[in-house]
Amino acid sequence: MNKWVYGFGAGQADGDASQKNLLGGKGANLAEMSKLGLPVPPGFTVTTEVCTTFYANDRTYPDDLADQVMQAVEQIGNATGRNFGDAQNPLLVSVRSGARASMPGMMDTVLNLGLNDETVQGLAQLSKDERFAYDSYRRFIQMYSNVVLGLDHDRFEEILDDYKDVHDYQVDTDLTADDWKKVVSAFLAMVNEEMGTPFPKDVHEQLWGAINAVFSSWMNQRAITYRRLHDIPESWGTAVNVQAMVFGNMGETSATGVAFTRDPSTGEKLYYGEFLVNAQGEDVVAGIRTPQPLTKISGGEQADRSMEVVMPDVYAQLTSVFDKLEAHYRDMQDIEFTVEQGKLYILQTRSGKRTAKAAVRIATEMCAEGVLTEEEAILRVDPSSLDQLLHPTLDPDAERQVLGQGLPASPGAASGEVTFTADEAEARRAQGRKVILVRIETSPEDIHGMHAAEGILTTRGGMTSHAAVVARGMGRPCVSGAGTVNIDMAKKTMTAGGVTLIDGDIITIDGSNGTIMKGLVPTIKPELTGDFSKLMGWADKVRRMKVRTNAETPADAKTAREFGAEGIGLCRTEHMFFDENRIMVVREMILAESEEGRRYALEKLLPFQKEDFAELFRIMAGLPVTVRLLDPPLHEFLPHSEEEIAAVSRAIGVPDSVLRRRVQELHEINPMLGHRGCRLGISFPEIYEMQARAIMEAACDVNQNTGDNMVPEIMIPLVGFAKELEMLRERVTVVADEVLKERGVAMDYMIGTMIELPRAALTADEVAQHADFFSFGTNDLTQTTLGISRDDASKFLGDYQARKVLERDPFVTMDADGVGKLVEMGVHLGRQTRHDLKTGICGEHGGDPASVALCEGFGLDYVSCSPFRVPIARLAAAQATVRSKQGH
Amino acid sequence: MNKWVYGFGAGQADGDASQKNLLGGKGANLAEMSKLGLPVPPGFTVTTEVCTTFYANDRTYPDDLADQVMQAVEQIGNATGRNFGDAQNPLLVSVRSGARASMPGMMDTVLNLGLNDETVQGLAQLSKDERFAYDSYRRFIQMYSNVVLGLDHDRFEEILDDYKDVHDYQVDTDLTADDWKKVVSAFLAMVNEEMGTPFPKDVHEQLWGAINAVFSSWMNQRAITYRRLHDIPESWGTAVNVQAMVFGNMGETSATGVAFTRDPSTGEKLYYGEFLVNAQGEDVVAGIRTPQPLTKISGGEQADRSMEVVMPDVYAQLTSVFDKLEAHYRDMQDIEFTVEQGKLYILQTRSGKRTAKAAVRIATEMCAEGVLTEEEAILRVDPSSLDQLLHPTLDPDAERQVLGQGLPASPGAASGEVTFTADEAEARRAQGRKVILVRIETSPEDIHGMHAAEGILTTRGGMTSHAAVVARGMGRPCVSGAGTVNIDMAKKTMTAGGVTLIDGDIITIDGSNGTIMKGLVPTIKPELTGDFSKLMGWADKVRRMKVRTNAETPADAKTAREFGAEGIGLCRTEHMFFDENRIMVVREMILAESEEGRRYALEKLLPFQKEDFAELFRIMAGLPVTVRLLDPPLHEFLPHSEEEIAAVSRAIGVPDSVLRRRVQELHEINPMLGHRGCRLGISFPEIYEMQARAIMEAACDVNQNTGDNMVPEIMIPLVGFAKELEMLRERVTVVADEVLKERGVAMDYMIGTMIELPRAALTADEVAQHADFFSFGTNDLTQTTLGISRDDASKFLGDYQARKVLERDPFVTMDADGVGKLVEMGVHLGRQTRHDLKTGICGEHGGDPASVALCEGFGLDYVSCSPFRVPIARLAAAQATVRSKQGH
Repeated sequence: MNKWVYGFGAGQADGDASQKNLLGGKGANLAEMSKLGLPVPPGFTVTTEVCTTFYANDRTYPDDLADQVMQAVEQIGNATGRNFGDAQNPLLVSVRSGARASMPGMMDTVLNLGLNDETVQGLAQLSKDERFAYDSYRRFIQMYSNVVLGLDHDRFEEILDDYKDVHDYQVDTDLTADDWKKVVSAFLAMVNEEMGTPFPKDVHEQLWGAINAVFSSWMNQRAITYRRLHDIPESWGTAVNVQAMVFGNMGETSATGVAFTRDPSTGEKLYYGEFLVNAQGEDVVAGIRTPQPLTKISGGEQADRSMEVVMPDVYAQLTSVFDKLEAHYRDMQDIEFTVEQGKLYILQTRSGKRTAKAAVRIATEMCAEGVLTEEEAILRVDPSSLDQLLHPTLDPDAERQVLGQGLPASPGAASGEVTFTADEAEARRAQGRKVILVRIETSPEDIHGMHAAEGILTTRGGMTSHAAVVARGMGRPCVSGAGTVNIDMAKKTMTAGGVTLIDGDIITIDGSNGTIMKGLVPTIKPELTGDFSKLMGWADKVRRMKVRTNAETPADAKTAREFGAEGIGLCRTEHMFFDENRIMVVREMILAESEEGRRYALEKLLPFQKEDFAELFRIMAGLPVTVRLLDPPLHEFLPHSEEEIAAVSRAIGVPDSVLRRRVQELHEINPMLGHRGCRLGISFPEIYEMQARAIMEAACDVNQNTGDNMVPEIMIPLVGFAKELEMLRERVTVVADEVLKERGVAMDYMIGTMIELPRAALTADEVAQHADFFSFGTNDLTQTTLGISRDDASKFLGDYQARKVLERDPFVTMDADGVGKLVEMGVHLGRQTRHDLKTGICGEHGGDPASVALCEGFGLDYVSCSPFRVPIARLAAAQATVRSKQGH
Repeated sequence: MNKWVYGFGAGQADGDASQKNLLGGKGANLAEMSKLGLPVPPGFTVTTEVCTTFYANDRTYPDDLADQVMQAVEQIGNATGRNFGDAQNPLLVSVRSGARASMPGMMDTVLNLGLNDETVQGLAQLSKDERFAYDSYRRFIQMYSNVVLGLDHDRFEEILDDYKDVHDYQVDTDLTADDWKKVVSAFLAMVNEEMGTPFPKDVHEQLWGAINAVFSSWMNQRAITYRRLHDIPESWGTAVNVQAMVFGNMGETSATGVAFTRDPSTGEKLYYGEFLVNAQGEDVVAGIRTPQPLTKISGGEQADRSMEVVMPDVYAQLTSVFDKLEAHYRDMQDIEFTVEQGKLYILQTRSGKRTAKAAVRIATEMCAEGVLTEEEAILRVDPSSLDQLLHPTLDPDAERQVLGQGLPASPGAASGEVTFTADEAEARRAQGRKVILVRIETSPEDIHGMHAAEGILTTRGGMTSHAAVVARGMGRPCVSGAGTVNIDMAKKTMTAGGVTLIDGDIITIDGSNGTIMKGLVPTIKPELTGDFSKLMGWADKVRRMKVRTNAETPADAKTAREFGAEGIGLCRTEHMFFDENRIMVVREMILAESEEGRRYALEKLLPFQKEDFAELFRIMAGLPVTVRLLDPPLHEFLPHSEEEIAAVSRAIGVPDSVLRRRVQELHEINPMLGHRGCRLGISFPEIYEMQARAIMEAACDVNQNTGDNMVPEIMIPLVGFAKELEMLRERVTVVADEVLKERGVAMDYMIGTMIELPRAALTADEVAQHADFFSFGTNDLTQTTLGISRDDASKFLGDYQARKVLERDPFVTMDADGVGKLVEMGVHLGRQTRHDLKTGICGEHGGDPASVALCEGFGLDYVSCSPFRVPIARLAAAQATVRSKQGH
C-alpha cells in the first residue's frame, strides 16, 4: 500500500525536512519542527505524489487515499482532544497548499474548516466567545465559497457592507455575535441561491472540497505564470497540508505574526518581525490595522508596543524557537506563528528571502559564527543578485510616476534629460548636464553618445541588442525594447503612458527592472562592504576558472580591474574605429580603390590603435589581454541616410555619388552572415597587418617600460575553415616577428581564434592546428546554431517564452543542448589536437551564473564578461567549482 | 636506393598503367603500351615523387637521380642504336611533362633535344636530309631558348621574318638547308647576346635544363590556375617523360596525327581523327595547314586525301592499334601517333574526352558489345554532364559577340528582348514576344516575370541567389552575378563590354557557362535518345535512394515527372502566395490587426491553396508529396519602395501610413535568422491551420476521384526546438483529423520537419519524437553552419575559392566536414529515437552528384532536387550505390 498521507505534531512526525519533494516545503518543515519538539499544531500532509497521480489520472485520486485521510483526521482529533464534526467539541482545520518551491499567494487556502450550524455552537462554548465563533463561521463560509465553490468575494462583501450601512456600523469590530449570526444567515442564503444547492454542512464533504480545490489550484493561471517566471516544473505538483486550527483572534492574549531571525534587508543579526494582537493571518495581510514590532530595538517609537514588552513570556519562548530553528536549518528563517490565549504555535518556517546585501552579510557572519564553512557561505549568495550591489538603485521610499516598461537590459538606475541624438548627448554632457539617450535603436555610431549619457532607453531590440550589450559593457543603466514608448524623431518627442515628453524633460530609468519614470527619482549609491570583499575573497580562493573582462575603453578596463578581472578576454578593436578622430580615416580606408590607398589610410590609424592597446596593457599590468582583430562588416562604418552621406562627403572631400555607390556595394541582406570577421582579413590583409603591428609594438613598449611580462593574445574572429586561420596566422606571425626583430627583443605572443560558427566547433580539431587558444563567442554561436538574429528576436522570443517553447532567453543563458553541445565538442576536439589549448568564453554568457556553471563542466580555462558582471562571474565560477567537487 | 626513373620501350617497361600516381598519366600509359608490344619510341619517366622531393627540398634533386637518368639515357641509346651527343649517330629526345590528371598545354615541352653544331651534321647524314636537320635544329634552339632560358618567342620570329623579307620568301618551306643554317647562326648569336653566354652545346646540360624547366612549370601561373579550376592538388606533382624523338616531318612517307577510337562528339563507333603529312606535332597545333581526315567515311569531300586512301598499310596498322587499345583499356581512347618514313609510332593514349551525348552512347554501346557491365556503364557518365542533354545549347557553329560573363547559374541557352521589369516581361510574353529578364537581383515579387522570360540575367547574387535557385527550379537558363554588366533602371539600359543596349534589344545568354552575348545566337534543342533512357533505366534498377523533385507549379511537376521524379520532396507553399490573384489577400492577412482578421483573409486563400495542392497531387498520381508550410518572413509579401506602397495602398484600400508602419514593424536586420518558418506558425497558428486543411482536403478529393492512395507529407520548416514541432504537430493533427472526420474517410498522412538549423541536427533525437520524417534543408543549414549568407556571399566566396580557402562553393557541393557532419548526426540521432524515420534532402545539394554520394553514405532514403536535375540525381544516386557496393 502506498503511503499518501504523512502525519505530524505533538513531538513526532512521519516525515522530515529532507522530504521536500514529497511533502512540499511547508509540509516537510512542519514535520521537521514537530520532530524538534516545537509547538506545531498537529496535522497531516497529502503528498505531491497524490497531485501527480491526480493529474495523470484525469483528476481522480488513488483508491486508498480516502481511508488514509480519514485516519489522519482522527489522529489530529486524538492530539487535540477534539473531534472533526463534533457538535460539542469540534475540531477545526486549515487546508493549505505547499509545493516544493515556495509559491507565495499563488494557490488557495481554506481556514476554519469544520464549521457548520451545529459545530459553530460548540466552538462558541469552547471559546466562551460566541462573537468569535460566528465571526469565524462567516469567514469560513466566505473563504470556502470563494476558493471551493468559485463565488466572488464581492458578493459577500456587499452583504456585509449593506448590513453595516443599515446598522450604521463603521468597522467589522462593531458587529456583535448576533449581528454575525444574521450575516451568516444572509451568506448561506446567498450561496444557496447562487449555487442552487445549500452550503455543505457535512464536514468531510467540506474537507474533500478544500483538498480538491488546492490540487486544482496547481493548474490555475496565476500558478502557471508563477512557475514559468521561476522555472518551476509543472511535474513537481503540490502537497496539501491539513492542520488543526489555532486562533490568534481569541482575545487580547491571542496574536498572530511573522518574523525573520535576521534583518532580511540589511542582514543584521537582529530578530525582525511584526504581529497583531487578537487577529488572524488574513488581518495582517489586509493591512487595516498597523502591526506591532517584535522587538524593542527595532520598534522605534513603537518600542513600547513591541511583543518584547507586551508579551514578554511568549517573546522569550519565540526567540528561543528562532535560535533553535536557525541553528537547526543553518540559515536565516522566515517564521509564521500564532499565539492562542497565551500559548505559542509555530505554523511555518522556511529560509527567508533577503536582499543581496543581506545575503552577503548573513553568509559571511554565519561563517564567522562557525555555522557555515567558507564554501557553504559561497553557495548561499545568488550571484545574479550581486548586480544590486554594484549599481545605483532607486531610493525605495521615493515616489515615482511610471510611464512604461521595457526590458531590464543593463542594471542600475539613472536620471537625466531626454536626449534624442548621440551628438546632442555629448554636447550636453560637456555642459555638465545629465542626459538619458533615447533612441529607437542604437548603432555603433551612437557609442560616444552612450558614453556621455547616464543611461540609455531604446524602443526596439532585446536583451542582447547593440544598446544592451554596449550599455552593460560600459556599466550604463539601459532599458531596451520599450515597445510602448513612441518616439517622434522629427518633433523630438517621446510619448509613453499617455504622457508626451519633449527634448530636455527629465526622466528616470531603472535598468534592473525595465521601468521608465517621469522626472527625477532619487537613487542610492552602491557600497561594497567589507562582507562583500570577504566573500569574494573566499570565492577567488576556491574557483578553478579565471575571470576576465570584455573591455576596450580605459574606463571599462579600470572598472573591471577594480571588480577583480584577471585580464581582458575580449577587446573589440572596432569600437576604437568609431572615435571622432578616426572614423574619417577609417572611411578613407574603405573608400580607397586600391591596396595602396588602404595602406596609406591604415598608416594613419596605426599610432591611434597602438596607443589604445598600450593604455589597456598598462591598466592590465601584466595580465593577459586578448585583442580581437576587426570584426564588423565595413558598411557599419559608412553613413547611411542621404543626410549623413552628404555630410561625410563634404567632410572627407569624396563626391557623394562615390560614397553612395560604395555604400550600395557594401550593403548586405544578412550582415550577420556577411563579409565580416576573418573574411575581411582575407580580403584586406593590410587591415589585420596594421592591427597586429599596433598590438605588438604596444606590447613591446609597455613591457619594456613597466618591466611587466604581458603576453598579448591576438584573436582572429569568425573562423569557419581551418584554412582561414592558417593563412591569417601566417600573415600575423610575419608582422609580429618583424616587430620583434625591429625592436630586437624576445616576447611571447599567442594567436588564436573565436569559435563562433557551428562549423568551427564541428571541425575544431582542424582549427586547433593553427590556434594557441579558443575563445567561444557564444553570442554569434547562439545566433547561428539557433538560426536566430538577436537584433530581430524580440519579435518572437517573448512569445516563445510565454508559450514555453524556450525556458530561458538563449542570449542570456546558454542553450545547453544546442550551443553547449557545440562548445563541449569544440573543447574536446580542440584539445585532441592540442592538449594545452587555452579555452575561454567571451560571449554575454560569460557573466551569467547558469552559463558559467556549464563552462565549468566543459573544462574551460576562463570566462570573460562585461566589467560590471565580473564579481558575478567570480562568485558563479566559485559556486560551480564547489558544486562540481560535490559531484553535482 | 629509391627508384626515381622508370624505363619503357621495345616491348617492355618498368611500370604499367596502374602507376598513374607515380608516373603520371602519360608515363603510365607509355609503359603499358610498351608492355602490350605496341610501337612506342623508347624512353623513361622521372617520377612525380622527384617533383614532390624537388619542391620539398628547396628545388634540389635527390642525390642518386643523376646516375639513374644517365643509365636510362644509355638504355634509350641501346634500344635505338644511337648515342646521346654522338656526332655521327646522334640520339635526339623529347622532354615532356605528364601529371596524374591531364593538364593539356599547361606545362612545357622541349623537342629535338640533343642537337648542337656537331650532332646536327650527324642528323643530316642519318636522315639524308640536310634541310630537315637544320630546320630541326632551329626549332630546337627556339623552343629550348623559350622554355628553358626564358627568351621570348618573338625574338626568333623577328629574325626569321627579317630573313624571309630580305630573301623575299613567303612561307617557311621556301627556305633551303643553307637558309636554315644562316637562321641558326643568327639565332645562336642572338641568344649569346641576350644571355651573355652561349647556347648550351653540351647535350647533358641541355637535358637537365629541360627537366628542370618541366618541373618548374608545375608552379607556373597557368598550371596553378588550371589546377584550381580542375580541383587538382598541388601535392600531386608532375612526372617528366624523356623519349627518343621520332619524326613525322622526314618527307612524304612521314606524318603525324591524333585520333579517337570513337566519335567524341556523337559517340558513334567510328574511328575519328586527323593527320598531316611531313609535319611535326606543333604544325598540327599551329593550324597553318589543313589536316587530312583519317577515314574515308568521315572525310566527306576530303575522302580521297584520307589516310585510309593515301597510307593504307599504316592505316591498317593504326586501326589494329586502336582496337587493341580500346579493348585493353575498355574505354574510348584519344591517341597521338607519328609515322616516320613509313614506320608507325604511338606517342600517347588516354581516355578520350567526350560530350555528354557521346558518353551516354559509348557507355550503352560498350555494354551492348559486352565490354562493360551495366554497373560499369553507369559509372562511365559524369552525371553533371547530363545537363547538356536536357537544355537547349548554343549552336557551336554560330557566331557570337560576347558582351560579358557572369556565373553559370542555371543551364541552357536562351535569347530574347532585354526587359527590365517582371511586369513588362509578362506583358511582352502575352504578346508572343520572347524576353530575357534583366535585373540587378530578383525577389519573390519577380516570379511571374521569371516565368514569362526565356532566361534571366542578374548583376548581383551567387549560384544560389534567389534568381539562380528559382531559375533552376523552373528550368530557365540563368546567368547571375554578372558584375561587369551595368544596369541603369531609370534609363532602362544595360552596358556591358563597352556596348550599351536599350530596353527591347536582343541578347542571348548561356546559363551553362555564364556567357552574355549580343543579338540572337541560334540554339539546338535537346534530344533524349534511346541510349539516354536505356542508361537511366539501368541507373534506376541499381540505385537505393529515391529521387524526388522540388516543385510547386504544375509545369515544374510535370517536367519532373517526365524526368523520372518519384514524388515531390519540397513544395514551397509561399510561391503560391505571390500569384496576382492572391497577393492582395495575403497582404490583407498580414495587415489584419487581429486573429479574426487574419482568419477572414485566410478563409479566402483556402480554396486557392487547396486547388494548388490538388493539381500537384493529380500530376504526381499517388507518389508522395511533401508540402512545406509557410516559410519566409511576412515582410517579403509587402511592398517596400514608397511607389509600391502607394500602389498597394490604393489597391487594397488601406492608408499608406498603416502600410508603411507595418512594413517598418516587420523590417528585419537579418531576415534569414528572423521571424520565419515555424516561428510564424507559432505566432500565427491560423496560417498553418489553413494550409493543413487545404492539403488534407485536396488529398481526400484527389484520392477519392482517382482511386490513388497518396499519403500527403506535411512539413514544418525551421524547427530549432523539439517543442516547436510538438506544438505545431498537435495543431496540424487536430485540423487534419477534423477534415478526415468531416469527410468520413480514413487516410494516412505524415507530419515531419525540415532539419535546417544546427540545433535541430544536434538535438535530432528530441526532434524525432514528434516527426514522421526529416528533410534536410541543406541550403539554410549551410548558411547557418558556415555563418554565410548566400545572398551576400558573392562578395568573398570568389576570393575564397581563388585563395583555396574553400575547394568548392559550399552552396553547390555539400560541405562534408561541417554540414555533412550535422546531417550525419541528424540521421543517426533521429533514427535512435525512431528507427523507421524517413529521411531525405531537399536543398540544392540534392541535385549535385558529389553531395548525392554523401547522402548515400548517410543512409538517406531520398534526395530531392529541381526538375531539370532529376536525371542527374538518378544517375548520381546509382553511381553512389555502385561505389558503395564496391566499398568506396
